[in-house]
Amino acid sequence: MSTPTSEKTLFLGSFVHSKTLGNLEFLHDSAVCVDEKGLIVAIERDCDEKKVQEIVLPRLGWTAGEISVWTSQQGQFFFPGFVDTHIHASQYPNAGIFGKSTLLDWLNTYTFPMESSLSEASKAKKVYSRVIERTLSHGTTTASYYATISVPSTNLLADLCLEKGQRAFIGRCCMDCLAPDYYRDESAASSLADTRATITHIAGIDPTNALITPIITPRFAPSCSRELMHGLGALQKETNLPVQTHISENNNECDLVKSLFPEFDSYTEVYDGHNLLGPKTILAHAIHLSEDELDLIKKREGKISHCPVSNSSITSGTARVRWMLNKGVDVGLGTDMSGGYSPSVLEAVRQAALVSNHVAMGGEDMAKLSAEEGLYLATKGGAKVVGLADKIGGFEVGMEWDAQLIGMGVVGGEEKGDMGPVDIFGWETWDERIAKWVFNGDDRNTLAVWVKGRLVHERKF
Amino acid sequence: MSTPTSEKTLFLGSFVHSKTLGNLEFLHDSAVCVDEKGLIVAIERDCDEKKVQEIVLPRLGWTAGEISVWTSQQGQFFFPGFVDTHIHASQYPNAGIFGKSTLLDWLNTYTFPMESSLSEASKAKKVYSRVIERTLSHGTTTASYYATISVPSTNLLADLCLEKGQRAFIGRCCMDCLAPDYYRDESAASSLADTRATITHIAGIDPTNALITPIITPRFAPSCSRELMHGLGALQKETNLPVQTHISENNNECDLVKSLFPEFDSYTEVYDGHNLLGPKTILAHAIHLSEDELDLIKKREGKISHCPVSNSSITSGTARVRWMLNKGVDVGLGTDMSGGYSPSVLEAVRQAALVSNHVAMGGEDMAKLSAEEGLYLATKGGAKVVGLADKIGGFEVGMEWDAQLIGMGVVGGEEKGDMGPVDIFGWETWDERIAKWVFNGDDRNTLAVWVKGRLVHERKF
Repeated sequence: MSTPTSEKTLFLGSFVHSKTLGNLEFLHDSAVCVDEKGLIVAIERDCDEKKVQEIVLPRLGWTAGEISVWTSQQGQFFFPGFVDTHIHASQYPNAGIFGKSTLLDWLNTYTFPMESSLSEASKAKKVYSRVIERTLSHGTTTASYYATISVPSTNLLADLCLEKGQRAFIGRCCMDCLAPDYYRDESAASSLADTRATITHIAGIDPTNALITPIITPRFAPSCSRELMHGLGALQKETNLPVQTHISENNNECDLVKSLFPEFDSYTEVYDGHNLLGPKTILAHAIHLSEDELDLIKKREGKISHCPVSNSSITSGTARVRWMLNKGVDVGLGTDMSGGYSPSVLEAVRQAALVSNHVAMGGEDMAKLSAEEGLYLATKGGAKVVGLADKIGGFEVGMEWDAQLIGMGVVGGEEKGDMGPVDIFGWETWDERIAKWVFNGDDRNTLAVWVKGRLVHERKF
Repeated sequence: MSTPTSEKTLFLGSFVHSKTLGNLEFLHDSAVCVDEKGLIVAIERDCDEKKVQEIVLPRLGWTAGEISVWTSQQGQFFFPGFVDTHIHASQYPNAGIFGKSTLLDWLNTYTFPMESSLSEASKAKKVYSRVIERTLSHGTTTASYYATISVPSTNLLADLCLEKGQRAFIGRCCMDCLAPDYYRDESAASSLADTRATITHIAGIDPTNALITPIITPRFAPSCSRELMHGLGALQKETNLPVQTHISENNNECDLVKSLFPEFDSYTEVYDGHNLLGPKTILAHAIHLSEDELDLIKKREGKISHCPVSNSSITSGTARVRWMLNKGVDVGLGTDMSGGYSPSVLEAVRQAALVSNHVAMGGEDMAKLSAEEGLYLATKGGAKVVGLADKIGGFEVGMEWDAQLIGMGVVGGEEKGDMGPVDIFGWETWDERIAKWVFNGDDRNTLAVWVKGRLVHERKF
């Protein structure tokens, strides 16, 4: 296997992306030139294919014959690919199955049995292939995955992401405590060795981490011994790899951490005390944090993955995203499937808005997140969270082309087939079209998806 | 126009419906015989087409040649059609467009301008045709619609529902106060006369209300004069028609009602005092009710339409459905589109579960609604709310065939085309399949829809 390359491509039409939180930029009648490495090498406004041919291509030293052209049709637009900053690939078959459980019983009832069963290679292949295809179809160009404790099946997830062209962080779950006998690392030492095995595997298939990067994954403090966390902290220092874990998701979990780690003043300090909290750490959930904890996260430049669908589904709580943003902490969105029922980041955008409304109804008037703010979190915010803000999340020269083409059905239009759940009547402003997409759109509106310039998904009608 | 009839039809395979709150009944290898009037005349368990031919048809006096047959394939099932107990047909073009507004500014910014514009017949026809097609495609077999103040366009909605075969309650909005000049009934007298005009029109097109029933619709107390409400209360007594209105949706609205109607002790008493609260009254929202108000609603046998998507979208609050159910009040689900962004009752089921989780997170531990309970509210509960519990909402001999055929994609299966957003791996129990449908399903899973025995929607691939 090797990192796939793509052709030189010219994208023409409308481009929409987040400039800052809540502010979308609309580039109409524009052109974006992407080279064979997937890099954006030119962005031209107010132009058509003719102008590109006459002015832009010569400047780039390109000839018309060597490029392919993609044009967004009337009403369609290119949008940055979504970044899912927290998703459990191994839990995909359970999407939607959670009953009335909350975190700790949900783990034992639904999650550990499913994850454990993926040590069987054929099952892992079936599940992981499907989750990558599904998330690509929803426009997820980058995913920060939790796999399982199994090295072979975690490595398989990395192989499949590379093959199918999804940018991914691949985490083998480290858990040597408080998990059932049938699904637990044997010891801190074996957990560390297995983590290194996956790091080595990925170095073999994608040496420059062009697409695939290992991520150090202590599942969460209650399932990790001090020895394991110390070892993972040291491994992070040695490798400078990113880290992902869960924090402060559920009140019972917080109580458990307090009783398991009485020497620390807070959940956040447990990670910090094991050198697991730094600028490359992704903390999922972060619901029940104190002001001091958020200050510490800010000081360490830790990142937060907000998982609204999951938090409302398994009754974890309502994370205060505005509070985090106001503090200057970087926040992205996670589906947290299958704590969250949906593999779609667009669904997470929608629910981020609704959860923020619930925070507002709880008394924090300014908490509400707009559709535009949700889209920022899903793209640029997520790119910051996974440490790729210079590469993805928007359309700028020098960034890579991770993008999706969005289209919606026009009432009385000439399109044939299922044009998806959104109806455009024709009088909507662009802002209104975006709102319609955010609140009623689904994978049918994602017509095509590219990662690093490579076409990785095209909707079948 | 006349009420459409259908053929004698035999439905074979799996049938799922709610017996009681939270309890689904699964009938596999079963047969349901529906006569040409759309009535269920026989339900046979443990049988196949051969047994039906040999035993059931002779008993009914039917011959094989005169019936058509529908069979649910492996994994598919027939489910009762959804009842949307609160939907504004006229707001459909605004679905998803609400910004950060709350009720009172939402009405003035988005809603009144759109509703007003539907006095133009061609626009009303385009919008109403689409909303009926869309809601049918989502499995809504019965809808309790708010139209606009315009008599011709409200009558058009009735005509279109009859033509397309959707069971519907059609309400001309009555509002002679506190609405903008460009969109308000001229007087209480004109509002009453216009309401009668629609009642007369519907009596002309569907004299027995086989499909279409007028519903008396005081928009909400703040937009109705005392004279108008008295008149509508008298009209209800005269005609025995159902009534629909909004109640206690938003804190500012509740304050407004208190200041407008100081002679009443509560919002509920405003309606009760004008003879608008009875067993045929559908009250939408009911979020900020006091115990006394719910007691009064129970005493009058009033019905409640719970609209979770809307309540979370325009930040109205979290209705306490378990509290209502425990009190013995009948509750159904409403999309309240476009306060709610989605025309799908399945989305309302999903959000009813999530909103109930938010109520639980607020301290009412027992508040959580399961997927099965949500489905009850969407079918049997809704049927009670619209006064049709003897006709629709379940599969029983003597009831009418309002149903949808549900199918989900099988990973690695042989189906071609877009099999929808749900992936079945094959090891799921039936309860788990239902959960997957509720949390990730959409209109792609609704393969066909019948109202009163007539096929009114079939999914195009």
